[in-house]
Amino acid sequence: MSRIDASKIVLASRPDGRPTQDNFRCESFTPPALSGGQLLLRIEYLSLDPYMRGRMNAGKSYAEPTPVGGVMEGSGVATVLQSEHPDYHQGDIVLARTGWRTHAVVETPGVRKLDATIAPVTTALGVLGMPGFTAYSGMKMIGKPRHGETVVVGAASGPVGSLVGQIAMRAGARAVGIAGGKEKCSFAKSTFGFDEVIDHRLPDLPDRLAAACPTGIDVYFENIGGAVWQAVLPLLNLYARVPVCGLIAQYNAVPTGDNAALLAQTMNTILARSLTLRGYINSEFAAELYPSFLAEVGAAVASGEIRYREDFIDGLENAPAGLIGLLEGKNFGKLIVRVNAR
Amino acid sequence: MSRIDASKIVLASRPDGRPTQDNFRCESFTPPALSGGQLLLRIEYLSLDPYMRGRMNAGKSYAEPTPVGGVMEGSGVATVLQSEHPDYHQGDIVLARTGWRTHAVVETPGVRKLDATIAPVTTALGVLGMPGFTAYSGMKMIGKPRHGETVVVGAASGPVGSLVGQIAMRAGARAVGIAGGKEKCSFAKSTFGFDEVIDHRLPDLPDRLAAACPTGIDVYFENIGGAVWQAVLPLLNLYARVPVCGLIAQYNAVPTGDNAALLAQTMNTILARSLTLRGYINSEFAAELYPSFLAEVGAAVASGEIRYREDFIDGLENAPAGLIGLLEGKNFGKLIVRVNAR
Repeated sequence: MSRIDASKIVLASRPDGRPTQDNFRCESFTPPALSGGQLLLRIEYLSLDPYMRGRMNAGKSYAEPTPVGGVMEGSGVATVLQSEHPDYHQGDIVLARTGWRTHAVVETPGVRKLDATIAPVTTALGVLGMPGFTAYSGMKMIGKPRHGETVVVGAASGPVGSLVGQIAMRAGARAVGIAGGKEKCSFAKSTFGFDEVIDHRLPDLPDRLAAACPTGIDVYFENIGGAVWQAVLPLLNLYARVPVCGLIAQYNAVPTGDNAALLAQTMNTILARSLTLRGYINSEFAAELYPSFLAEVGAAVASGEIRYREDFIDGLENAPAGLIGLLEGKNFGKLIVRVNAR
Repeated sequence: MSRIDASKIVLASRPDGRPTQDNFRCESFTPPALSGGQLLLRIEYLSLDPYMRGRMNAGKSYAEPTPVGGVMEGSGVATVLQSEHPDYHQGDIVLARTGWRTHAVVETPGVRKLDATIAPVTTALGVLGMPGFTAYSGMKMIGKPRHGETVVVGAASGPVGSLVGQIAMRAGARAVGIAGGKEKCSFAKSTFGFDEVIDHRLPDLPDRLAAACPTGIDVYFENIGGAVWQAVLPLLNLYARVPVCGLIAQYNAVPTGDNAALLAQTMNTILARSLTLRGYINSEFAAELYPSFLAEVGAAVASGEIRYREDFIDGLENAPAGLIGLLEGKNFGKLIVRVNAR
């Protein structure tokens, strides 16, 4: 096989608050020769996700931080160029943890073959991948929406929020979304079918959310944090459930004195309304739920009952700008970098 | 029956922060004549509990507030003086929601006969009553301590904390208590058997708690709030459980800017460690668990395996000072007012 000129994006320095282009650096490399069991992949699509911001910090969150100088982590849809493993063949399309690279050499544990005849392969990065499973497992194991209840979720046009809303409605609950800007709000309502979608960029969020939830909130799927939590808290009903899967509004934030009273209010409300707050990472539930997720959501995506939206950017070199924008809500749907697929 | 000169304590005004004597008023009254099904009770012992502070506020928490001018709520152990109900007879000893009174006329739903041959009747206000069941149900339904885990609880010499610790140790877990002052700490260690007890009045609580929990915290039974939460938060292990049954340190508090960052830190930790925070009021679990609580804890109290401590004050007129002191940690064990029993 001819020599490949590959490139990768590494963490150049740790961000202080909002990441900037200076925190990333593009480097050329030549993929090493394969040893037994390995695959050489050409990355077609790279997923950009909020969790990547956490890996850029020094402190340990639920996973080890990326070392400075190390390649940015991430999952990609890739074509097998060369295989030293009997189960994989040249031309196979796979999902793998490739990192931010044009090409990668990987071991096969964690690699999953994709079948493009079932659904577009990019869905393995979104509605039928980690974001979709985050929505599905959080609702099945923690949110447990019931008929007639009200479910609220932020980032309603994004891959997690849009599926949370659709799962809520399939369970007979009322789904109220929160999104940033008129276009996302009307799209979430018309395409995903949310009963109401509130624009968090307009003033009076607490009042408008209260008006959209006249019987209170039974499930708040927390993937935002910050100002939205302040609006949600007074509306939570007795025995409300709060799956906490992300806090995108806090990832870049430096805390201010604005919320001095909000922890006391949060704890008081947990007590007074017998709330359940439960943090989780989707992998906790994968062994138990992943097969039923793929079967149930896969069928509903194939039939068109469950809808999704993807937002593409072109070129690995644009991945840093994509992640910076994602953390500010600039994406509109599941954000995917077309790396070699153009 | 001769005319009874009874007295009661009413809420004179709502406190602003810490309650004062001015918020209470003692009034004389004559118990009304009984109608069908009612009992006339002479209150022997009145229970004082932290939840009473919440009832003094105007806002609804998990129960309606006491109206200004209304009698302070509370449970008492009482002697039946007169009965218009076939199941109750003069001389019976009962547990009832009597309010802060020397005598009361009550309906029988909610009244429970006590058998002084099984355990001292005052235990129905503590280890075998609401505080004990709060500890028991929170540990069974939410804390779920396992062999080898570490359980931390505050107010370790009090009726809830002391039983939480003993239940933890019966499950094979390590019990670390927090209490205020040397005397309470050494008592909790020697009498209740806590593995370690930390004095929250000494400096460096976070460091000393960390040293007492070398493998982190798996269950934090939250009945305090405030500064203790700040010390506990960094030590919580993956999948730690936090039953939230009370926040006594916050009941009188006016929030300050000191904890501006603590909500963000709390939410980040819920996410990063997959924590479960679950508020509850013991009544939620009563139908399911009360019989097994009375059987299991009752037998262990009778055999001496489970120990408890009571702290008595004399005279209904001293109940306000008792509650004010309770909210500042001045009691040493389950606080009970001897009303007529002297």
